[in-house]
Amino acid sequence: MRLLPALALAPMLAPMLALAVPAAAQEAEPPTPASIVAAAPASDWRPIEPADLLVMDLAPDRDGKPRRVVIQLMPAPFSQGWVENIRALAKAHWWDGTSVYRVVDNWVAQWGDGEDDEAKAKPLPAGVTSPATAYEVADAPFTSAAFGTHFVLNPLADSPAVVGDKVILRDIERTHYATFFEGFPVAGYENPHHGISWPIHCYASVGVARDTDTTGTGSELYAVIGHAPRQLDRNIAVVGRVIEGIEHLSTLPRGKGDAGVYDDPAQRVPIVSVRLGSEVPELPQPHFEYLASDSASFAEYVRVRANRNDAFYKVPAGGIDVCNVQVPIRRVPSE
Amino acid sequence: MRLLPALALAPMLAPMLALAVPAAAQEAEPPTPASIVAAAPASDWRPIEPADLLVMDLAPDRDGKPRRVVIQLMPAPFSQGWVENIRALAKAHWWDGTSVYRVVDNWVAQWGDGEDDEAKAKPLPAGVTSPATAYEVADAPFTSAAFGTHFVLNPLADSPAVVGDKVILRDIERTHYATFFEGFPVAGYENPHHGISWPIHCYASVGVARDTDTTGTGSELYAVIGHAPRQLDRNIAVVGRVIEGIEHLSTLPRGKGDAGVYDDPAQRVPIVSVRLGSEVPELPQPHFEYLASDSASFAEYVRVRANRNDAFYKVPAGGIDVCNVQVPIRRVPSE
Repeated sequence: MRLLPALALAPMLAPMLALAVPAAAQEAEPPTPASIVAAAPASDWRPIEPADLLVMDLAPDRDGKPRRVVIQLMPAPFSQGWVENIRALAKAHWWDGTSVYRVVDNWVAQWGDGEDDEAKAKPLPAGVTSPATAYEVADAPFTSAAFGTHFVLNPLADSPAVVGDKVILRDIERTHYATFFEGFPVAGYENPHHGISWPIHCYASVGVARDTDTTGTGSELYAVIGHAPRQLDRNIAVVGRVIEGIEHLSTLPRGKGDAGVYDDPAQRVPIVSVRLGSEVPELPQPHFEYLASDSASFAEYVRVRANRNDAFYKVPAGGIDVCNVQVPIRRVPSE
Repeated sequence: MRLLPALALAPMLAPMLALAVPAAAQEAEPPTPASIVAAAPASDWRPIEPADLLVMDLAPDRDGKPRRVVIQLMPAPFSQGWVENIRALAKAHWWDGTSVYRVVDNWVAQWGDGEDDEAKAKPLPAGVTSPATAYEVADAPFTSAAFGTHFVLNPLADSPAVVGDKVILRDIERTHYATFFEGFPVAGYENPHHGISWPIHCYASVGVARDTDTTGTGSELYAVIGHAPRQLDRNIAVVGRVIEGIEHLSTLPRGKGDAGVYDDPAQRVPIVSVRLGSEVPELPQPHFEYLASDSASFAEYVRVRANRNDAFYKVPAGGIDVCNVQVPIRRVPSE
């Protein structure tokens, strides 16, 4: 069959295959994103602590297969007001018995209580309220010099993408960037102009649904299941991303009610439990690693993803959308 | 329940609701993409001829519900070698009895014969071979002046997005653009530098799967079900887009075999028939319209989508990814 090239790797899907490419073969063929990831030294991988995971078990599917969705929570300093709420909600087992109630194609799958009537809504744990926290972090320690790499979102230019030893894809203006912080895509303005940064939405990002006049508590969450909705950035708190099991959300039937809500309550997908990774009952706890976004392996990975020159590709893109970088994440095998 | 704002409109999903917004209400509230589309005069809509549609009927789902996917074929001058093949394949009923055999999350759903062994592959109609046609169109009549609007992909700047009466979101450099041609997203370089244009991949785009050393015939097709894979542009022929029923592809189970192919042949989703819209047996034939991308309504629609200031949005994006524009498409009611 005629295949499109596979994804360089599918960090969201499953544990990665450790591609055992002999050194001679690596030299003979141009590097691919997969070969770079496979060759990355252990020191270029960073652990994701179980306490920073949210493990959501949906009811089994029609065939009785389990459906587990694993979410990595956003690291400080971003969105911590909501992340703290989410930790409290998970510890209180608040989501148990709630549901995925809204699914819109090329947009989001959303879960939580989903109750319009505040009188009927499930009470929140004490202290869980809409944070006043801004969506941006001011005076963040994120400058282009600190990052080292700049990505402009979706450049199409085929001009050289590497300047010196840096992956500078296309710097529209020095005061504006999109890059990665601890493996998460972020955007911002450099000091001394504004000095603010914010986490951005990509496929599988998890955000806080909210009413018009609140920032939301974090009890109602959504995962992006389509093209990056850039218009939501700085308007909604991004609190994490799905790192395993996104297909249990992206393949759900699309809702036909208002705004994609399931109009028949029987369509809602029951949530059996949501726990912090450090509180799941079974052992070993889930452990993952991400390819450090300040590592040499990551820089090379991005450079090659932006300039594919393995046999399938005839015209390298010469640039890459920050949401197309797809930070490599792998499950650490249990011992 | 706390909702994210609904999509401004969901052209891929279903016939649009004609939002009957009273004039007074329109004046009181800032315009939204939906209100602009609802107010667009009939003269700003262009027909999509049934002969330019590909109607794919999958086998009914487990609940017996029909699954129809409607694809609009790429207009000339783009990708016409493959589009001609696709018309010939549909007229020969070539896809009937083939299947959707590969589904990869945040990537593609792919269909056709899916046979690795050329000796076993379904014979193609006479004359259907891989075109030598380039993926770009040279000396295209597409200049910034002709288009009037320039979009840079995914700008994040919050600088003014409107210059004079034009929607100029952020012109990285004058020789490079992404915009729309007859409602399809395209990119290119202006004359006198290169003078080439090419259709680009967005969510729901349909492209021609191919081997490494061919351009593909069009018999194996895929639809994008994730973030725009910019690296495929100019490397694969984009031949159309799904305008209705994308959820019948995007919700399919993800394949667990190599490259996301269904490893169990029983998982393949049977294709009952693929016909040109002008050759479907039932009447009336499907009719659709798109909001003309050179109309005043479209320019205003993009401007407002890039600068949401209805109540939900606190910080307008100040720009928009070309793939987030989502050209409005509606089904024309049968008489």
